[in-house]
Amino acid sequence: MINQAGREIPDEHLVDGIEVFQGQYYREEYEYKKAGPKVKASIKPKESKLVENLREAILKSELKDGMTVSFHHHFRDGDYVVNMVMDEIHDLGIRDITVCASSLGTAHAPIVRYIEDGTITGISSSGVRGEIGEAISEGKLKNPAYIRCHGGRVRAIETGDIHIDVAFIGAPSSDEYGNARGKGGKSDCGVLSYAMVDAEYADKVVVITDTLAPFPNFPPSIGQQDVDYVVVVPEIGDSKKIANELLRFTTNPRDLMIAEYATKALVNTPYFKDGFSFQTGAGGPSLAVTRFLKPYMIERDIKMGMVVGGATKPMIDLLEEGLIGAIMDAQAFDLPSIASANSHPRHFEISTSQYANPMNKGAFVNKLDYVILGALEVDTDFNVNVITGSDGVVRGAPGGHVDTAAGSKCSIIVAPLVRSRIPTIKDSVITVTTPGESIDIVVTEVGIAINPRRKDLLEALQGIDLPIMTIEELRDEAYRLAGQPSDVLFEDQVVALVEYRDGTLIDVIRKPKKISFDL
Amino acid sequence: MINQAGREIPDEHLVDGIEVFQGQYYREEYEYKKAGPKVKASIKPKESKLVENLREAILKSELKDGMTVSFHHHFRDGDYVVNMVMDEIHDLGIRDITVCASSLGTAHAPIVRYIEDGTITGISSSGVRGEIGEAISEGKLKNPAYIRCHGGRVRAIETGDIHIDVAFIGAPSSDEYGNARGKGGKSDCGVLSYAMVDAEYADKVVVITDTLAPFPNFPPSIGQQDVDYVVVVPEIGDSKKIANELLRFTTNPRDLMIAEYATKALVNTPYFKDGFSFQTGAGGPSLAVTRFLKPYMIERDIKMGMVVGGATKPMIDLLEEGLIGAIMDAQAFDLPSIASANSHPRHFEISTSQYANPMNKGAFVNKLDYVILGALEVDTDFNVNVITGSDGVVRGAPGGHVDTAAGSKCSIIVAPLVRSRIPTIKDSVITVTTPGESIDIVVTEVGIAINPRRKDLLEALQGIDLPIMTIEELRDEAYRLAGQPSDVLFEDQVVALVEYRDGTLIDVIRKPKKISFDL
Repeated sequence: MINQAGREIPDEHLVDGIEVFQGQYYREEYEYKKAGPKVKASIKPKESKLVENLREAILKSELKDGMTVSFHHHFRDGDYVVNMVMDEIHDLGIRDITVCASSLGTAHAPIVRYIEDGTITGISSSGVRGEIGEAISEGKLKNPAYIRCHGGRVRAIETGDIHIDVAFIGAPSSDEYGNARGKGGKSDCGVLSYAMVDAEYADKVVVITDTLAPFPNFPPSIGQQDVDYVVVVPEIGDSKKIANELLRFTTNPRDLMIAEYATKALVNTPYFKDGFSFQTGAGGPSLAVTRFLKPYMIERDIKMGMVVGGATKPMIDLLEEGLIGAIMDAQAFDLPSIASANSHPRHFEISTSQYANPMNKGAFVNKLDYVILGALEVDTDFNVNVITGSDGVVRGAPGGHVDTAAGSKCSIIVAPLVRSRIPTIKDSVITVTTPGESIDIVVTEVGIAINPRRKDLLEALQGIDLPIMTIEELRDEAYRLAGQPSDVLFEDQVVALVEYRDGTLIDVIRKPKKISFDL
Repeated sequence: MINQAGREIPDEHLVDGIEVFQGQYYREEYEYKKAGPKVKASIKPKESKLVENLREAILKSELKDGMTVSFHHHFRDGDYVVNMVMDEIHDLGIRDITVCASSLGTAHAPIVRYIEDGTITGISSSGVRGEIGEAISEGKLKNPAYIRCHGGRVRAIETGDIHIDVAFIGAPSSDEYGNARGKGGKSDCGVLSYAMVDAEYADKVVVITDTLAPFPNFPPSIGQQDVDYVVVVPEIGDSKKIANELLRFTTNPRDLMIAEYATKALVNTPYFKDGFSFQTGAGGPSLAVTRFLKPYMIERDIKMGMVVGGATKPMIDLLEEGLIGAIMDAQAFDLPSIASANSHPRHFEISTSQYANPMNKGAFVNKLDYVILGALEVDTDFNVNVITGSDGVVRGAPGGHVDTAAGSKCSIIVAPLVRSRIPTIKDSVITVTTPGESIDIVVTEVGIAINPRRKDLLEALQGIDLPIMTIEELRDEAYRLAGQPSDVLFEDQVVALVEYRDGTLIDVIRKPKKISFDL
């Protein structure tokens, strides 16, 4: 069936009530009964939930073939937990496991061998970067992977679309009864937002820490009432690797020009007023916008009311200068953000459900004025691809892209017109992750396109010294510079399903016909 | 069927899997699937959940005949919310409502008329003091009331034994999106612990506040993700009335002697060492114990690791003097506690599930060394009654009594031997709320009895200058002073079911044959 984003979703995936994507607000006021975990009561007084080691925790959790385990990615490229748990599961001979991670990255390349040997047969994740993405695209995973954005993952867990049997939660500090924090450890990650839903909805919850804190380790991100076992290991991660290459403070003149245009557009839209709310992704141009906004804010005596989502150093700087009312943090992207999460009274940890779940009673993304986002590709319907590379291989992550684009009043894509001689603006994106109806403005170094649905924004930006063009003109210019890209050829095999945040299917990813690793 | 506390539970109440009480740890490792509310998704960006008034909130919540509504009692005798909501429900002609309150008190006497006219036909509550208790005992409520302790109420909600259709949560402050706090308002109550489970498990959640705070009102006790509607009213309560007559700083020599004995017993048990954990009820002798402990703590260089449950001024004093590591607060009992909850970095708010739920993965009561509790009656099996008066009328509240007695290593009852010429220590209590197996020491002004099950405590207190007696000797002395009490006569009609914290039935309360209101 063809969905509203124009994508063909094979009927075999439209079972058990799964529908095709039908618009960003299709499921507004959708009623459902929340899922609930199976809990084993702990009535007797008990001093501790500590177990000897990870193996004992896995055995006690009664993890069996065919079950689902979960992980968070607050340690990003510095995470040690996924690999150590999967090694142990593999060594115990447990097979056919689905890994429900908030994201998987280059740190997790070692688990590709468990995809190959049948230890792992299912993946639900936002990002699948690096070798795992390649393995998925090669069709090595037994079942199609589920690509779920951050809000969509929480939704899937809370609605029961995915059930976690055992959650493994790496925590910078925990007491012996399971009160766990993103702070107070050898390697802090600041917040544990992604893991909160896992703790509440998994049948069994194992906290893995390298820093045993005195009881009670308060206030906790993960509360003792939800934790079955606590394991102490030598090291859960390396916080210095949290900031990966994605998080760069760009000096590239092209990126700076994009950021300048985006900033100028933003400050001339009607939501730029005192108390406005703001979010950026972690790409170079996105981060630069935050810095470029400052002089406009000071000049017009405007402060940000709140910043939502990922915290980064440019945000922390503004917070410390009193230019931000509050940071609502679902992920600390660098060491200054972790330090701020540990200390600043207006830097708050929120759960990913609070942040972006489309199916609770109101997430923070619903209150966003602006979001600045990146894109691998944008098409002339304003659909965005942030998951597949130009070779069709899975190598990105929707993260909160889909959620913030739908929730915000003004979503701005910042992207170079052409990357490595490949056009970013195209007739049709390889994979739709975020539907065009959620995208308001696309900014490149050559020109700015405004979604025709947003006549109000077109009007607001008229007369401003900005190179406003149509999206088709941007595409033409991209094609002129880099040539019209030839279509990637795919086999029939569906290797991943791209779930929209509300649970409908917005696209499928197929196995590319020829995969070249040296692009 | 006769249960393990020796009480006859009529078979008609043993339906739908309800069992009789079979010991305090009978349901250790009991497995169940947590309940989940029915949620209506709020995907579209929305500025506010404010509705015009309470009536509009009730109408939008789709409250209907036969449904269950819930309330918390953090405002205690100063609460305005229950009455204003029930007035509106009555005026809308909605009938057959079950009120699931964490407690009901004298402030709520006006709702007796709604019991009489069939607006309210069911009650689940810890306390039912004053006129509501009398109405229940007179058999005016259509269905037997459920007496549930604090941990039992949360358990019943989380297991789905009781389902809340609409929760009405009075909050000292809330923003327009439903982030609500016990702080920051005209009348603060410090914490909103009782209401947290309501917010998470009710289908519809209405926050009622008299102080609209700027968004985001953080960190919240009740999060926007769980709130449907916000109503602003002139006043939700009077915090000055939170400290009712129960909370007295006694100068009564008898009470002081009880406190002195209890303190001396406590400091000679093996758990009195640095980092010990402690809780008291809010009665006069209980509060005095906290003050009497201080010189012993200073002399032996012992600090409390944590205090759990209700916060009171004597605790706050110790916290400020650095003698307490942390207060884990589920209820602020007076204005100094509210002020401390608002400001002290080691004064933490916990949910009632974290505090006392026997069926989560480990509540704070499980980590208690000592609890000091009151009693209306104690029998020679150490069973305690804190719910029915000597006339058999419902006029008390188990609160956290049952939970802390079961969870603590050493539970100490402090009570006068005789009250108004009526023995406190008896052959058999009128109603069993807390089973004797949970009670370790009973302290009166005449002597101290140690539960024979606790040979270790008997041994520890041997040779200490304390009037140690058997419970039978205490009873004999009580009977000698006040005469043997004649049995209260009851009709057959069961007016209330006393549910043990784990969901089994520990006793039933029948209609007294003759009720005299001028005792």
